[in-house]
Amino acid sequence: MTETDIIIIGTGPAGLEAAITCVIRKKKILLLGQKDLSAKLTKAHTVNNYLGFPDISGADLAENFNKHILALDIEITEKRAASIYNMGDYFAVQSGAEMFQAKAIILATGMVQKTLLPGEEILIGKGVSYCATCDAALYPGKTAIVISYSEDEESEAEFLAEYADKVIYIPMYKDAKISKENIEVIYAKPEEIIGENSFNLLKTDKGDISADGVFILREAIAPDVLIPGIETDKGHVVVGKDMSSSIPGVFACGDITGLPYQYIKAAGEGNIAALSACAYVDSMSKGK
Amino acid sequence: MTETDIIIIGTGPAGLEAAITCVIRKKKILLLGQKDLSAKLTKAHTVNNYLGFPDISGADLAENFNKHILALDIEITEKRAASIYNMGDYFAVQSGAEMFQAKAIILATGMVQKTLLPGEEILIGKGVSYCATCDAALYPGKTAIVISYSEDEESEAEFLAEYADKVIYIPMYKDAKISKENIEVIYAKPEEIIGENSFNLLKTDKGDISADGVFILREAIAPDVLIPGIETDKGHVVVGKDMSSSIPGVFACGDITGLPYQYIKAAGEGNIAALSACAYVDSMSKGK
Repeated sequence: MTETDIIIIGTGPAGLEAAITCVIRKKKILLLGQKDLSAKLTKAHTVNNYLGFPDISGADLAENFNKHILALDIEITEKRAASIYNMGDYFAVQSGAEMFQAKAIILATGMVQKTLLPGEEILIGKGVSYCATCDAALYPGKTAIVISYSEDEESEAEFLAEYADKVIYIPMYKDAKISKENIEVIYAKPEEIIGENSFNLLKTDKGDISADGVFILREAIAPDVLIPGIETDKGHVVVGKDMSSSIPGVFACGDITGLPYQYIKAAGEGNIAALSACAYVDSMSKGK
Repeated sequence: MTETDIIIIGTGPAGLEAAITCVIRKKKILLLGQKDLSAKLTKAHTVNNYLGFPDISGADLAENFNKHILALDIEITEKRAASIYNMGDYFAVQSGAEMFQAKAIILATGMVQKTLLPGEEILIGKGVSYCATCDAALYPGKTAIVISYSEDEESEAEFLAEYADKVIYIPMYKDAKISKENIEVIYAKPEEIIGENSFNLLKTDKGDISADGVFILREAIAPDVLIPGIETDKGHVVVGKDMSSSIPGVFACGDITGLPYQYIKAAGEGNIAALSACAYVDSMSKGK
């Protein structure tokens, strides 16, 4: 298990600013996210209100951000946090089969566009899961559906297929490259999740698919799914002035904390969250 | 009286970011502050945690900020807000003999280093004043002391001398250029303000100076002196998540709202304060 001071999840402006601030404060960090930074940022046509960069393209602004983290030798680890476990005096972050451990967590995963499937919410934990790695062990002798929003999830599905008898993989993108004898790829549009007290079947535009459970693997995970028990309000993490969440040691910054969804606001909050997380780590090592 | 949508007070990162955001949102603004921006910023040796600008000098960062406001044709009006009056549906900002009027106010004046003189606080309003323009009319036939922290205050003292019989001007800087027959310049270090229920005399390292009142003109005015009734906590304006203060229509951002005193945090808050102020102005014009 890799140990560090602070794990920062997300590589938009909030996560990057948090990373540089932590490193300047001489903390060991693990920065999880995509190396091409926030898609929302890099695809922005023009950003005109990030003070210091008049009228810049999202791609050029991201390039400047990249230069900044390179100047501080900050690496991005391209892993996706699937679950965070609060172990009392530390946190364990699960990513696929790997576990990372830290004293504090900074959530900077952006805002989840939460368009749930009909029936999804009421069956969470009753056959609807968001983490193949976490629940794969429940599937020997069973069939699982995987609805996947990213090809990065293919390894998750393959891992699940080590346990399950059969995996039905429904990619929400073209040209899935997954191949394993017990994985069937079906291109279909999921419409509804059906079940009384447990999952029964998935309605799609190509017909119903029966299985023992369904895994829905979206790019961003809702914060209260990522770390159960964290206080949220309409999908946003509730934070104090110091960006602390309801769980001591967990801080949040950027779009995940609420409106306005603006780059400079996100960066400013990343700075605050980082300083708070550093102070938290310091107070722990003083045995407070 | 000059009328506008939003008056922004302060030209550090918070005030500048607020200004660009308001202008992008097509609001009319008046930006009050120093054209050489925040002294704290321009004198900073190195800034290393403003995301996008690795390892930059304060002067160079200020130069980039300047380019940004120039690109948006934003002008800085070099006036100092002495008092803000809440007129119910608008605010009046007094600066010397001038008045400016706006629907909303954004305070971005930075943190006041509040090292008061002994005896100062208990005699506020009882012979201790922070605004010569406001209280000059009380001084015909009387003598006033002016303790001035900036040569920009010389015009304030001259204005006061139009009313008072005599003004004793104590500059906290070298080479005061003030000259008027009833103004005496004394170079001395103020040590204590003496008086029971009203001002009696000023103790200095060059001896005691008697007068009817004393004006203390510091570069930054404490927020609750600038706008009476605003809720503060240890000198900081208390703000909500949207940077609104306890007075509807008054927003605050940057160091004035509290720690951490960081440029990117200030800029991020400037953005939030601006968006909130714009929404407030919009709601007013809808007659809400």
